[in-house]
Amino acid sequence: MTASAEASAREGSSVRGRALADAARSGDRRALARLLTQIEDRTSAAEAALRILYPLAGKAHLVGVTGAPGAGKSTLVASLVGEARAGGRPVAVLAIDPSSPITGGAILGDRVRMQAYAGDRDVFIRSMASRGHVGGLATSTVAAAAVLDACGFPLIFIETVGTGQSEVAVAAIADTTLVVQAPEMGDEVQAIKAGLLEVADIVVVNKADRPGADRAASHLRAMLTVGAQHDRALGDRPRPKRPDVLLASGMAGTGVSEILAALDRREAKHGAGSREQADGTRLARAEAQLAGILAERLHQQLWDPERAAATEAVLRAVADHELDPYAAADQLLVSVAKGGRDGPTSAT
Amino acid sequence: MTASAEASAREGSSVRGRALADAARSGDRRALARLLTQIEDRTSAAEAALRILYPLAGKAHLVGVTGAPGAGKSTLVASLVGEARAGGRPVAVLAIDPSSPITGGAILGDRVRMQAYAGDRDVFIRSMASRGHVGGLATSTVAAAAVLDACGFPLIFIETVGTGQSEVAVAAIADTTLVVQAPEMGDEVQAIKAGLLEVADIVVVNKADRPGADRAASHLRAMLTVGAQHDRALGDRPRPKRPDVLLASGMAGTGVSEILAALDRREAKHGAGSREQADGTRLARAEAQLAGILAERLHQQLWDPERAAATEAVLRAVADHELDPYAAADQLLVSVAKGGRDGPTSAT
Repeated sequence: MTASAEASAREGSSVRGRALADAARSGDRRALARLLTQIEDRTSAAEAALRILYPLAGKAHLVGVTGAPGAGKSTLVASLVGEARAGGRPVAVLAIDPSSPITGGAILGDRVRMQAYAGDRDVFIRSMASRGHVGGLATSTVAAAAVLDACGFPLIFIETVGTGQSEVAVAAIADTTLVVQAPEMGDEVQAIKAGLLEVADIVVVNKADRPGADRAASHLRAMLTVGAQHDRALGDRPRPKRPDVLLASGMAGTGVSEILAALDRREAKHGAGSREQADGTRLARAEAQLAGILAERLHQQLWDPERAAATEAVLRAVADHELDPYAAADQLLVSVAKGGRDGPTSAT
Repeated sequence: MTASAEASAREGSSVRGRALADAARSGDRRALARLLTQIEDRTSAAEAALRILYPLAGKAHLVGVTGAPGAGKSTLVASLVGEARAGGRPVAVLAIDPSSPITGGAILGDRVRMQAYAGDRDVFIRSMASRGHVGGLATSTVAAAAVLDACGFPLIFIETVGTGQSEVAVAAIADTTLVVQAPEMGDEVQAIKAGLLEVADIVVVNKADRPGADRAASHLRAMLTVGAQHDRALGDRPRPKRPDVLLASGMAGTGVSEILAALDRREAKHGAGSREQADGTRLARAEAQLAGILAERLHQQLWDPERAAATEAVLRAVADHELDPYAAADQLLVSVAKGGRDGPTSAT
């Protein structure tokens, strides 16, 4: 592609991105869905759209919902959506799908869940897969949440299975993190749980109709009181760790309105005075997003047509253990810092 | 700290890193353990050590072992270690611990597992936690594996719970990826499994003494034959996807020598002619490691004392939705490209 053809392709996708952003803002749900696909694929249209929408976002309450497999997250989120809709509130769900890093996973599950709300334009449910992109899940998810926020969804659930480092990171970028667990769980799951409790603002003991639920809740409350010393969390943001413990049954629908009320209380508190934690969360979110974009930009520069052969040669030297990766990284950074698209300069 | 004090601190940690590398190479296991801690913490001592050790690595067979929680990975890995030792081979295990992204997790579990081999210096078992570092798990793990490789461990198991995107990525940087599953598992776990099968070179149906194991294995073989069309995997590296399906019981120790034999066959094949897949894996591994180091370098530059205030201001503008993250990323990159440690230049 010639330079001018390339420039005009860039211009085209920028126009497309702006058109998608406008249509999504005006309530076109198909445009919104298409825009989220662009965001997932990290296209330049997505970038153009986000440049418009990002400044309009910042109002929604982002609620991370996480927990071990089998805790009943999806059912609980479905109940929360139902409860929000019963109160007339628009609500969106981003489901982070870890099942396939390659093909993108459970789109089917989405469609099934969407059906219950097929006629309701104030519910938007969407799976996110990272598709092996450089910037990681957190970047796409923050961007998608900003789009939904700018398009008028005041409450956004980010549902993620809480067993992976990226997934926990995603939970941690939400304003409020809700950790779901079932009363009875195996040993390996217990270990996962311990890690998750560190990021919890609210813990929900789900399947509260099962035996042992009350005992599990008391046990948790006792444990969390002991753990409250532990008040450093991701990065250095301050987090007074004393999560609420609530009982619910996503299946039966009990305890769900109490969860929504607890979420609203947290939101109201942050909207009012004590903004310290809210600020920390917003900074962490901005940092996650920036880190992803920076990694992407660097990747683009390294694999730019003019520089790709040199990058590949460096990579191959590392793969062959002829060059150590630190020396390689420094070579690549010098090459990026030196030249724009013109490649290495002739300077000494 | 003055510039000269800083330089001398850097010099000191570089000397310490070289000393650790030499001691670890000569068989000092305590030095090896200390070095791996430095690697996890991404210190400059670790960098100095890795610059020495990396060129000496590249000989070991890195075997990723992954699977859903409850599949019995740890027990199976313990059996594989026992089998390797029975054959007189040194063996190392890196257990990627996702249970706590913050405090670092199940070091205790390690100690328990170590006890069985307390007197055996040819077994080295170690947990890795990412501790929220920028470069992600893959970088630390590749670096740790290179250290173990350079210290003479020819067989290195990298054990990771296969439910997170980072964890699957770690499995994918191994030479060979072994996916473990139990015969009977719930729905959510089934979904996880489908994603994992895409990265599998060998699938082990574990707990083969349980009812349904044979049926599960036949089912898998049929499924994988259908799935063999599907031969693109992470990135663009070619992967003829036709994994072996083996039955085993980590608990009873049955089928374990067959797994080791299958691993050796794969290793021998790659050592001999068909290097295409091996090359792809090595390149992917080098790329994962470089990406992590690049992210780290960029992070260091952005939070350099001279630049931290400016970086924080940009971050805050993004957090407050006053600046879109792409514009912010470009500002930060320009600032890094412009100045070294001297801060922004006065040039126009």
